[in-house]
Amino acid sequence: MSTSRHIFYISDRTGLTAENIGEALLNQFGHLKFKRFTLPFINTVEKARTVVAEVNRSAEQEGQRPIAFVSVVDDEIRSIIKEANAFQINFFDTFLDVLAKELNAEAKQAEQGHHSIGNTQRYDARMEAVNFSLNHDDGISDKNLQEADVILMGVSRSGKTPTCLYLALQYGIRAANYPLIPDDLESTDLPRMLKPYKDKIFGLTIQPERLQAIRQERRPNSSYAKIDTCRSEIADAQAMFKRHGIPFTNTTDKSVEELAVYILQACKLQRRF
Amino acid sequence: MSTSRHIFYISDRTGLTAENIGEALLNQFGHLKFKRFTLPFINTVEKARTVVAEVNRSAEQEGQRPIAFVSVVDDEIRSIIKEANAFQINFFDTFLDVLAKELNAEAKQAEQGHHSIGNTQRYDARMEAVNFSLNHDDGISDKNLQEADVILMGVSRSGKTPTCLYLALQYGIRAANYPLIPDDLESTDLPRMLKPYKDKIFGLTIQPERLQAIRQERRPNSSYAKIDTCRSEIADAQAMFKRHGIPFTNTTDKSVEELAVYILQACKLQRRF
Repeated sequence: MSTSRHIFYISDRTGLTAENIGEALLNQFGHLKFKRFTLPFINTVEKARTVVAEVNRSAEQEGQRPIAFVSVVDDEIRSIIKEANAFQINFFDTFLDVLAKELNAEAKQAEQGHHSIGNTQRYDARMEAVNFSLNHDDGISDKNLQEADVILMGVSRSGKTPTCLYLALQYGIRAANYPLIPDDLESTDLPRMLKPYKDKIFGLTIQPERLQAIRQERRPNSSYAKIDTCRSEIADAQAMFKRHGIPFTNTTDKSVEELAVYILQACKLQRRF
Repeated sequence: MSTSRHIFYISDRTGLTAENIGEALLNQFGHLKFKRFTLPFINTVEKARTVVAEVNRSAEQEGQRPIAFVSVVDDEIRSIIKEANAFQINFFDTFLDVLAKELNAEAKQAEQGHHSIGNTQRYDARMEAVNFSLNHDDGISDKNLQEADVILMGVSRSGKTPTCLYLALQYGIRAANYPLIPDDLESTDLPRMLKPYKDKIFGLTIQPERLQAIRQERRPNSSYAKIDTCRSEIADAQAMFKRHGIPFTNTTDKSVEELAVYILQACKLQRRF
């Protein structure tokens, strides 16, 4: 018998919602061990039967029923999956009827394809935002800074690029990215290129020890990666943020998701979808 | 009285899980109109009281109680939010106790800070994967193609870059990206650079009309954006995929999330976190 309880994420789409709920709940039992399996695109009766077989096999082999987080809209497919030998958490089953009652409306099967105009618009907004971020990564071009929704500023490797890309992909936000180089940091002024856009700037800072570890990975034993360099760059950057009243946050203990939501809120940005 | 029902996403973290569940459920009522408000980082009693006031104000102004999707772990904060005049869907309340019973374990408050080694590792894996994708965007460098988990191949603007970046950010997958240019498409052979890595290649294709619209946006009235150019490039690319047994999918009606999960599954990729 295994020590890791098996977890199945079963979805008619990507499984991301089932994973999200499941991980939030399982995170409350961080002292236990789990082994995870995601089964996406379970959108036919045949696939549902295969899922049931796989879950039942797991239950038999492990000597205990797995836990299944199920996110399936179609009633027929869901009822087949229900026959599987698993402890099932199914949020459509649990919440859809009560929500329908509150809304005083019947749930209509969502259109299955994704041909809707909404999807195309979302894709376009994402593409534009991703292209925007890529074209403005590392402050190379200021041509379209005026079109930026936000400009992330910080020393090299403080977390600007992944945050920009996440803002673009998740929210369609056009996030540019300005790395503070030593020349910038010696001045008490804002970098000239950014002055017209001061209101869009958000600062990122980071713990010196963490920055040192990241830089050391990238350029081992360089002066760039020395702890003294990291300390002084960070101190100068924070002084600049404070001098010019630029809002900023420390990225050290934040995930990219948390940073993105924090920046949305702090800069009162409107997501584009 | 407004025609759009107000929706609140209330969370002690980013609100992404609450939004995910809520949108999946509300999507079943696509004929109704909603107005959405996300209230993230509600992690103190004071913030919870502000939320209650905001929700109650909405109920009063709109003449009907809003719907709240609540994702808050802390019992005290959650009990304050419960006093708000809203129809509340709270998945911790609903699922945590039954899950604890099934696991035969007590839920322990998750550590609040994010200083855990797991978080740092996740951040590092993401950074590496994002850097990898950026360094290999548009096939510029083949130096490290051997380190790629997957190589997305397709004609210009078929959706490679956002998919690569999403794979990196969401799953830590190192996704390189090879654009098929007319020279490649004239040959019956695979592009020379890619031959050693044939098993890692995944093809993207797209509807000619959609490709034309995307290219037209980017380079209006160019021969690149002509429907005939799009048709012939796509036909050549698909012929290449088939000739060399490269798995591929059509991106036209898929979201970036769906593409990413589809590729994970088709290429049997192991997510890195």
